[in-house]
Amino acid sequence: MKYQNMTPQSTVRRLPLYLRKLDHLIESGIQVTSSQELSSRTGFTAEQIRKDLAYFGAFGTRGKGYNTKFLREKILKIIGLDEQTNIVVVGVGHLGIAITRYNVTKNPYVNVAAAFDIDPAIVGKKILDVEVLHISRLKETAKKQDIRAAVLTVPAEHAQAGFQSIVESGINVIYNFAPVKLPAMKGIYVHNADLSAELQSIIYYATMLHKEKNKILAKK
Amino acid sequence: MKYQNMTPQSTVRRLPLYLRKLDHLIESGIQVTSSQELSSRTGFTAEQIRKDLAYFGAFGTRGKGYNTKFLREKILKIIGLDEQTNIVVVGVGHLGIAITRYNVTKNPYVNVAAAFDIDPAIVGKKILDVEVLHISRLKETAKKQDIRAAVLTVPAEHAQAGFQSIVESGINVIYNFAPVKLPAMKGIYVHNADLSAELQSIIYYATMLHKEKNKILAKK
Repeated sequence: MKYQNMTPQSTVRRLPLYLRKLDHLIESGIQVTSSQELSSRTGFTAEQIRKDLAYFGAFGTRGKGYNTKFLREKILKIIGLDEQTNIVVVGVGHLGIAITRYNVTKNPYVNVAAAFDIDPAIVGKKILDVEVLHISRLKETAKKQDIRAAVLTVPAEHAQAGFQSIVESGINVIYNFAPVKLPAMKGIYVHNADLSAELQSIIYYATMLHKEKNKILAKK
Repeated sequence: MKYQNMTPQSTVRRLPLYLRKLDHLIESGIQVTSSQELSSRTGFTAEQIRKDLAYFGAFGTRGKGYNTKFLREKILKIIGLDEQTNIVVVGVGHLGIAITRYNVTKNPYVNVAAAFDIDPAIVGKKILDVEVLHISRLKETAKKQDIRAAVLTVPAEHAQAGFQSIVESGINVIYNFAPVKLPAMKGIYVHNADLSAELQSIIYYATMLHKEKNKILAKK
């Protein structure tokens, strides 16, 4: 899906980080903040923060900064966290269970309406209060419960089939944990978690620090 | 940890994505590629790709492009994937099990040397061939087996203790899945998976697409 004339993805990905900082500031009783303060707490430049927020309107007062509670409410509304979003989890292996449990217990912004699998040994069980249904019931659930996003946590070999079931059910936003590139489709937004690429970039630092340590030892 | 005069993190995070594209090109029998071709397949600009690679040396021939196998070998070496990296998993809940299983079965670049937990019901068990040891044995394992990175998959309330055990064992690279900001420490590199912030940015798109759908329906 191409989003022309739209807020850049990088801006969208920073919004939750601003939100978290605002939560911390509000918890500490701070009522007014500045792009400079948000900068020192997030690592993004003050200019970047002002630019990001400007996509959505004017939330600060020049020379006075931002009211933390007001800005938090605005960002909640921009992201769509001012109401709970119904999601489903497709694939009830260890990762699917971990993600379901986390979202049920720790994430007030989403409601995991159901989880789906094809394995008869799992279908019919529950993860906390979340029912595990057969994937053939995804379409019916998506319609009934206004499901707006699916988390895809199936093994690579089932990713294509899982993707197809999600798209056919009318859900058009997918958070993909399967280590597979899903096909680009008009009207479908896919975000790849890509843990394996992240792990590789971590290995870069592990290797570098190891080499540095060896250099230091060699000098001794 | 501050890395001054170093390759930017954004560059490091793109290297695995270039590697994956090169894998695809090599599988398709393509021997020579260009920054333009890599651009059209990764979504990064050709200029960005040239700039990223230039941090590590000159790998292409002007006007001829890059030899795919040569560039792949170079990137493997830069990241440190030319030899297996020993890692450990700290926290054997569903997420820890999922990550251990994935890396054992699908990731040739790492060796999961052991997993660690404090729960006596889990310690002593195995995940595939990986032994689950008590966290008190982390230091001894790290020394014996040259462990270069730890994946932290404990619940938020145990994140601080898990972090401390890792640092005390001499491991200085951490891939953190706990939804907690770990303290900055000199010589310690922490990469936060931050699935909850990612899910929030996905909700942004879910909300936006939902609003668009409603607009279209309203016009009918």
